[in-house]
Amino acid sequence: MNVLRHTISLLSLSSFQLGRRMKSQHFRGFLLGTGVGLSTFATVTYAQAETAKVKRQLDTSKFMAAPITEADVLLEDADENMRHRMELMIMEIQAEFCRALESEEFSGQKFKVDRWLRSEGGGGVTCVLQDGDVFEKAGVNVSVVTGSLPPAAVQQMRARGKALTENVKLPFFASGVSAVIHPRNPHVPTIHFNYRYFEVQLPDGSKQWWFGGGTDLTPYYLDETDAKHFHKTLKAACDEHDVSYYPRFKKWCDDYFHIKHRNESRGIGGIFFDDIDEPSQEQAFKFVKSCAKAVTPSYLPLVQKHKNEAYGNNERQWQLLRRGRYVEFNLIYDRGTKFGLYTPGARYESILMSLPLHARWEYMHEPQAKSKENALLQVLQHPKEWV
Amino acid sequence: MNVLRHTISLLSLSSFQLGRRMKSQHFRGFLLGTGVGLSTFATVTYAQAETAKVKRQLDTSKFMAAPITEADVLLEDADENMRHRMELMIMEIQAEFCRALESEEFSGQKFKVDRWLRSEGGGGVTCVLQDGDVFEKAGVNVSVVTGSLPPAAVQQMRARGKALTENVKLPFFASGVSAVIHPRNPHVPTIHFNYRYFEVQLPDGSKQWWFGGGTDLTPYYLDETDAKHFHKTLKAACDEHDVSYYPRFKKWCDDYFHIKHRNESRGIGGIFFDDIDEPSQEQAFKFVKSCAKAVTPSYLPLVQKHKNEAYGNNERQWQLLRRGRYVEFNLIYDRGTKFGLYTPGARYESILMSLPLHARWEYMHEPQAKSKENALLQVLQHPKEWV
Repeated sequence: MNVLRHTISLLSLSSFQLGRRMKSQHFRGFLLGTGVGLSTFATVTYAQAETAKVKRQLDTSKFMAAPITEADVLLEDADENMRHRMELMIMEIQAEFCRALESEEFSGQKFKVDRWLRSEGGGGVTCVLQDGDVFEKAGVNVSVVTGSLPPAAVQQMRARGKALTENVKLPFFASGVSAVIHPRNPHVPTIHFNYRYFEVQLPDGSKQWWFGGGTDLTPYYLDETDAKHFHKTLKAACDEHDVSYYPRFKKWCDDYFHIKHRNESRGIGGIFFDDIDEPSQEQAFKFVKSCAKAVTPSYLPLVQKHKNEAYGNNERQWQLLRRGRYVEFNLIYDRGTKFGLYTPGARYESILMSLPLHARWEYMHEPQAKSKENALLQVLQHPKEWV
Repeated sequence: MNVLRHTISLLSLSSFQLGRRMKSQHFRGFLLGTGVGLSTFATVTYAQAETAKVKRQLDTSKFMAAPITEADVLLEDADENMRHRMELMIMEIQAEFCRALESEEFSGQKFKVDRWLRSEGGGGVTCVLQDGDVFEKAGVNVSVVTGSLPPAAVQQMRARGKALTENVKLPFFASGVSAVIHPRNPHVPTIHFNYRYFEVQLPDGSKQWWFGGGTDLTPYYLDETDAKHFHKTLKAACDEHDVSYYPRFKKWCDDYFHIKHRNESRGIGGIFFDDIDEPSQEQAFKFVKSCAKAVTPSYLPLVQKHKNEAYGNNERQWQLLRRGRYVEFNLIYDRGTKFGLYTPGARYESILMSLPLHARWEYMHEPQAKSKENALLQVLQHPKEWV
């Protein structure tokens, strides 16, 4: 069975990881154990049938790259092991969302896919589409990471204090999918979402787990129909699980994506939550999955509606200014960015893919009183209820 | 004398501050005490002669705006009161530097001057030249501020721990001049400098004071002659006071302006120091003044040398990418920016004037191996000695 597992996983690995695996002690053990040469190829042939079976169950072929955990390990206990269940879910969400965005590009631009491994444990799949016709910069990242939490990262990890002792390194597991999409046309809003699962092992050996996540929209021009559609889609995903979720997480989102020094919101919100460990792990996971599945239907219609709309230099300059605000929020306040950048060995390119291709800062910029730009600013300064 | 002081200071105030002063209890007391109407104007006429005398001594007419402290108060004890001495010095440096930059503009663009007051105490003079021919964005700010230090700001205030008790609000005084100049031509480097003076009153009633500051250069293309000229000018200013200063503060600069997550420097350094309270207040001030006076001669020749140099889209895109790194440093690591943004009632427009007009983030950008861009990157990754 051990032989089979290695052979199957070998088939699903990229050539990059293959090179790495060839060097591992375990794999060399396998080569020696089965003999080299023909017998290896025979095993591969046998394994192809098994792989097909695996693919029927899982269909990892639709993923943007091979999962971080070997496919057969993932499948073996995906029903009871939340780490594996979450990894499969976020790989699926990443692929669905990337394909949906690619289908909106005029000239067939595709995501560049980087599968990376982290020497401290785990890795990720970073997909970036840059300089597209429709998407100026779109980043969709999956990461599945294990390690020890340094004190600075502990502080950024949880919104509300659970009994985590600071200044003590704790073994952790973190997995999540996150995306920021900056379209070219200023009439198409920017979207961000992030769904994540954490485990931390406490000094007494017990384990804490929780989910977090959210989806929020950052328009450059306010279209009330868009705002309603977006919030209604997220609300429906929440309501399936608990009718108290949407109002609670909508408010949390408004509070979180707030640029304190400017006293304005980054965008028109959505939902945001952290520390979700109720009512059960099963139900918390299903809730998070519903939210993640709601991303594409909440956003794609807005892309389709606006991507051909006319705009000029004024709209472009305003979009760039708002992107400057986006950068301010992400680099000064965003806990995820700080958590990432303070984690030793973090892949900063994957963390900073959220930054726009271009941004602008103008001293003392103020939109004219009755302009469309000012209409947006009013809503950012006074968050509204949309459903 | 009290009447005279108010009348003189009235003459030196902007109409904005005049409106504010008119509402103050003290000023209303003066109007009532001297009667209204003609007698007020008579006093003004008498005061004009006194103002002329003040101007002869101080020549505040060359400043970009009226100082924050009333001119006669400033003069009264400028010899023994370090707060006032520092304010006069930074107002002078601001004006000298702004005029020097304006003289390099092709079409006579001038700095926009904003004199602002802070309800918590003090204020500043912010000068910004935006969208010039030579300077894409140049900001030169003076601030003279009093207040109470909130805990978050305490943490950002000093590089090395002196016995400041955290989580206790302490009365403070802070004054300084700071500037960031982003030229349009990628062959002209960006310069930053900041010279500051702090006082904090401890719970036991005693006072701590110290100076901080530095000047550093961020080229987009490496010109070794420029780098040497720049460092040599700073070294000469340091050597006048203590030959150990330049090597110590050059290293401090390299360590401070380091983008940790990328493991590269923001630029080619210069000098940086904090917590200077030796050998005496008098000598520390004179050292800081020498450094501040060295800014213009360290930088202006580089502007003159390169401002007409040809460049194309490649150079512009590289400049924008490096400006993205500048934003990363300022928003993630810079203690001055954090200190500012965490101070309640801070004027964020003056703090964020350091951000470039445009910046760019490209996923996984790497300059070609033998390019000029890569030559710069090598120096940023391995700081050099220039003198």
